Amino acid sequence: MKPPIGRDTKLCMSLSARPGNAGSMLHNRLYELLGLDYVYKSFSTADLPAAIGGIRALGIRGCAVSMPFKEAVIPLIDAMEPSASAIDSVNTIVNDDGHLTGYNTDFVAVRDLLVQRRIDPALPFAVRGSGGMAKAVVAALRDCGFGEGVVVARNREAGQSLAEQYGYAWQAEVPARGAPLLVNVTPLGMAGADEAAMSFDDAQIAGCEIAFDVVAQPAMTPFILAADKAGKKIISGAEVIVLQAVEQFVLYTGIRPDPEMIRDAALAAHGPQVAERLIL
Amino acid sequence: MKPPIGRDTKLCMSLSARPGNAGSMLHNRLYELLGLDYVYKSFSTADLPAAIGGIRALGIRGCAVSMPFKEAVIPLIDAMEPSASAIDSVNTIVNDDGHLTGYNTDFVAVRDLLVQRRIDPALPFAVRGSGGMAKAVVAALRDCGFGEGVVVARNREAGQSLAEQYGYAWQAEVPARGAPLLVNVTPLGMAGADEAAMSFDDAQIAGCEIAFDVVAQPAMTPFILAADKAGKKIISGAEVIVLQAVEQFVLYTGIRPDPEMIRDAALAAHGPQVAERLIL
Repeated sequence: MKPPIGRDTKLCMSLSARPGNAGSMLHNRLYELLGLDYVYKSFSTADLPAAIGGIRALGIRGCAVSMPFKEAVIPLIDAMEPSASAIDSVNTIVNDDGHLTGYNTDFVAVRDLLVQRRIDPALPFAVRGSGGMAKAVVAALRDCGFGEGVVVARNREAGQSLAEQYGYAWQAEVPARGAPLLVNVTPLGMAGADEAAMSFDDAQIAGCEIAFDVVAQPAMTPFILAADKAGKKIISGAEVIVLQAVEQFVLYTGIRPDPEMIRDAALAAHGPQVAERLIL
Repeated sequence: MKPPIGRDTKLCMSLSARPGNAGSMLHNRLYELLGLDYVYKSFSTADLPAAIGGIRALGIRGCAVSMPFKEAVIPLIDAMEPSASAIDSVNTIVNDDGHLTGYNTDFVAVRDLLVQRRIDPALPFAVRGSGGMAKAVVAALRDCGFGEGVVVARNREAGQSLAEQYGYAWQAEVPARGAPLLVNVTPLGMAGADEAAMSFDDAQIAGCEIAFDVVAQPAMTPFILAADKAGKKIISGAEVIVLQAVEQFVLYTGIRPDPEMIRDAALAAHGPQVAERLIL
């Protein structure tokens, strides 16, 4: 059983412009299931240097970092682990007695999913998107040895720069013939204004082998639903969002929860649609 | 019912060199009883300015301040409420949208106890002690209009300075005849090395009307036990420690818990000996 909160309880937290509740729900549920003396809470801040100074001074064990702080925290911490330095972006800070190390568990989660699902690096890919998460995805593809691919982004400067950094091609539009591995890293299909939008068209989906969407809400975007119906191998953003949080949990606590605990915590944090999608 | 911890949950905390668990137990129990979306945790720090900066930057709602930080925080906060400025000592910080105000609820608790118990300010007092808490007690006596009293302290410099600041006399030893109101603010009688020690002797106790001990653990010190047995009016440190925490709770949440809730929370935080002593 989880002990009551007291002097020995470790605090973990998140920092973002618009804090959500999913991180608190997931981590606190895992603490409860494992009987760990931790508590997790989300925060925002208007003063990033003072917030990071506070993490150090108060011995806060770990901090998830979201938009718009993923790059701004870099000069404020003490060390960068390869997952973060590979993409110049920190989504996780671990505090070891005042020494702050930056990690990027988005990169780790995408890389691990590509490996665990045995996605063949010989397959050419098309990645839509050129933001911070697209960088994590493209860097993970590179890390897994993918030799041929195209970064698709209407923003020429961002798209070309990302593609060139990792040795791939850039195009403004998805190639009509698609690619064997299709990856969406845009908001297309996300709950809200773009929820009906398809990130790849029917012909592209019909021609692919694997459909990978980073959008997690909903877990089944129109793209992933169509690919599933067409009998393609699919990887949902639900898996990315949960796995990256589990990697943070492991960094903070040193404990890897078992699959049933992860499913339980994902249910608490994201609801049944995400929890049921997890292949653990 | 208390909601799960999330983005809207307010964090309150304590800062001290040796954090205890009593504050966490008391506040968290009151949050639970009242269904408030708060969580409380104790911290220590080796970098007080960065810790206070973190409180401001993270929007931490309130902070209890203990030794050795009660004076050192003064230049780091934005305003001093009269309870703190009266004794140049802050035991409570309230954060209103980044504006930090210092209070001293030890002073408030002692003053309120003197008033609630209708201790006659015409009675001469003898206060043993010259530390920070003795200052809160002497200032509270002054604030309640006590006209005649003696500060008893072996340390001449500290004792004389405290006595003079509030217009009372100083003596190195307790006057043999005692005083109608005896107050102990030394560690004599406290669990540990001094637990068998009497802060006032039998003759002094026999001659007093009211025995007031600030030592809270145990709630019944040898001094208070002897005074109780002799039929004197007693005020225990258990009451001070709980009331000062309740005042912090009110400052942080704006809600005054009812006596049964306070007793329940005091039981969780300090055990039956303290909870049973409370006159609420």
